[in-house]
Amino acid sequence: MTGARSLAILGATPRFENPLQVGQFYWPRWEGYETAVRDIFSRRFYTSQRFAGPLVVEFQRRLEEFLGVKHVVVVRNATNALMIATHTLGLRGKVIVPSWTFIATVQALIWAKCQPVFCDIDLETQQMSMPSVRRLLEGGGIDGILGVHLWGNALPVGELDSLAEAYGVPVYYDAAQAFGCRVGERAIGAFGRAEVFSFQAANILSTAEGGCLATNDDALATKFLAMRGDHVPGGGVSLQSATARLSEIQAAIGLMILDDFDRIQRNNEEQHRCYESCLGSVPGIRVLTPSGATISNFQHLVAIVEPAKFGLTRDELLSVLKAENIVAERQFHPSAHLVSPFSAIALDPGQLCNTARAAEGTFQLPLGARVTVDRIERICDVIHAAHHHAGSLRPVLAAPAV
Amino acid sequence: MTGARSLAILGATPRFENPLQVGQFYWPRWEGYETAVRDIFSRRFYTSQRFAGPLVVEFQRRLEEFLGVKHVVVVRNATNALMIATHTLGLRGKVIVPSWTFIATVQALIWAKCQPVFCDIDLETQQMSMPSVRRLLEGGGIDGILGVHLWGNALPVGELDSLAEAYGVPVYYDAAQAFGCRVGERAIGAFGRAEVFSFQAANILSTAEGGCLATNDDALATKFLAMRGDHVPGGGVSLQSATARLSEIQAAIGLMILDDFDRIQRNNEEQHRCYESCLGSVPGIRVLTPSGATISNFQHLVAIVEPAKFGLTRDELLSVLKAENIVAERQFHPSAHLVSPFSAIALDPGQLCNTARAAEGTFQLPLGARVTVDRIERICDVIHAAHHHAGSLRPVLAAPAV
Repeated sequence: MTGARSLAILGATPRFENPLQVGQFYWPRWEGYETAVRDIFSRRFYTSQRFAGPLVVEFQRRLEEFLGVKHVVVVRNATNALMIATHTLGLRGKVIVPSWTFIATVQALIWAKCQPVFCDIDLETQQMSMPSVRRLLEGGGIDGILGVHLWGNALPVGELDSLAEAYGVPVYYDAAQAFGCRVGERAIGAFGRAEVFSFQAANILSTAEGGCLATNDDALATKFLAMRGDHVPGGGVSLQSATARLSEIQAAIGLMILDDFDRIQRNNEEQHRCYESCLGSVPGIRVLTPSGATISNFQHLVAIVEPAKFGLTRDELLSVLKAENIVAERQFHPSAHLVSPFSAIALDPGQLCNTARAAEGTFQLPLGARVTVDRIERICDVIHAAHHHAGSLRPVLAAPAV
Repeated sequence: MTGARSLAILGATPRFENPLQVGQFYWPRWEGYETAVRDIFSRRFYTSQRFAGPLVVEFQRRLEEFLGVKHVVVVRNATNALMIATHTLGLRGKVIVPSWTFIATVQALIWAKCQPVFCDIDLETQQMSMPSVRRLLEGGGIDGILGVHLWGNALPVGELDSLAEAYGVPVYYDAAQAFGCRVGERAIGAFGRAEVFSFQAANILSTAEGGCLATNDDALATKFLAMRGDHVPGGGVSLQSATARLSEIQAAIGLMILDDFDRIQRNNEEQHRCYESCLGSVPGIRVLTPSGATISNFQHLVAIVEPAKFGLTRDELLSVLKAENIVAERQFHPSAHLVSPFSAIALDPGQLCNTARAAEGTFQLPLGARVTVDRIERICDVIHAAHHHAGSLRPVLAAPAV
């Protein structure tokens, strides 16, 4: 066991020289990149001009194949994709969405003139709670449901689709964190009216910035194209109400990472298993396993602190990690329903008690291109030490530093 | 004089093998690009993660210097920048904007929950008409003015600023087409509460896709950063209501084109002068010269057809050009006030009579990296021939093909 004196928070040298951040950060090799981008330079076609360029078209085709979905429309980012989807589905009123999600999910609804109605989550999986969604639907006046697949896992899509059908309400998905995940034989991307992915660098498939819409609905796909700013014969100008193009270089990067997807996914899984095994024996630490998906992309390492058993609070542990240059995160803190302007329209917080509990204890650790199994073992060693020396750390941590 | 038989519309071989499109399309040389992007690869920092990356920060600093403005915040595109500016200025009601502008100007207002109130243009310059703006201000109920600098030219900023001040209404600018232009000694970018530029590839400074906000107001700049999604200490989460980052590769491209800006601007001016001189003698063709700016970026070649003198309508001329693979454009056709959903809230069209006239006769010709003085002379030769052989062309053009 590592002694307390080895911890940077007590004066030792930090375990990592440079800050280790949460996020995937996979990226193509230079050689392939050079070939693809020299081609773009010679074509002198850098981004869509009424019509998508050759690499954007190819990227969309490959994504359709990969996801087993009829149409993919790539756009500048997932926030924008959610704005387009919400607007195109004709939603203008109340939309059910979890408060436990990246704030941009909710912001996209606001830009699209909808009112978010927050549902709670299931405490075990942190996915949307179906009883909570049902309760909100029973209350009436709901125009749509924006489902969110969190943490490289899937929400219970079958159940949500049935609920939505029973109440005659359209459902679509924010799958920003779920690219490459499956439910049964079916890839996420093919559920609901449409699904949205993020290609921001922190996600498994990166174009640095970017995202896409996926749908099996021909008419919807045409509207998505028009909303991106493409010229759609017969679509009219009125639909072209967003400017949302992805550049050719971004498409080239996405294509290369897609080629390498299996290796990346296996690397994530190996790292995730390493965390699970290293942290499995720490009292008061629970690693969230993506059990709702038959295949996960394992892009997140999410853990929950139970202070009474662990000996420190989540924020105290994050201070210990930060001193070692391990920049663990507390994503979705504070939850959307506690943030202005959403707090003004939120439900009675009593109905979001699981969200409140998750927000207290949950944190994320680095996983992806910037870490290795060896580094993960060193990260876990800090968490072990923090637990064992909690008694002597607490006075040092008295002033919250996170 | 070129004979009628040399025209492709009458069966001759098209003058250009591949379609020549309107747009600037300047781009860095491979060597500089390779050095900059290899650095990004080695840093493994591809895009902002709460804080902007080193090249985004450097690009902003260089833009501030170039524009002589205190703050520049680069974002994913100009539409997004306009949404952020409108929202941040607290505008939620009626905003004066010309109908004669790229549709995204108006769409940004709609996304930001404002109602566009269309002003007319001056027929000579095609910039916003100050008498028209004054008339709308006199009508009352106006919350803001979104000025638009069109065609590499400036609207009468001094006059507009005085009008806005007299009526106590904030004014900000869509300067998407005016990067590098000056009014007196002052660069466009430093006027009004804020100005917005586009770095889409069709503009003089390109990052393929991109744009920025410029302002001298410290508090506004902080809010812009938060709206982009940056972590702003004390700014709170509530302001972070857009996801609008520019990637490091995009910033690298922008920096290189900025380095080359003087040469590019001179190249544009030379091409513009060539068009002016070649088309000066064609009856019924007027080339718009950017006379309102003391320095123009000359990024657009805009001309107006007077059919009675030229012999063909604008659309007939465009068909003749298209047959030669010269893809001349009729930007802003139809005008915003004629397009759903804006048509429903437009003024009595009688008040937009100059806009209607401009929309009938105006077109754009290729200027920038994809053409040369020699190519421009060949383009102008087609226009000369179209005028001289108008009588024999009209029957062929009976069915509109544009």
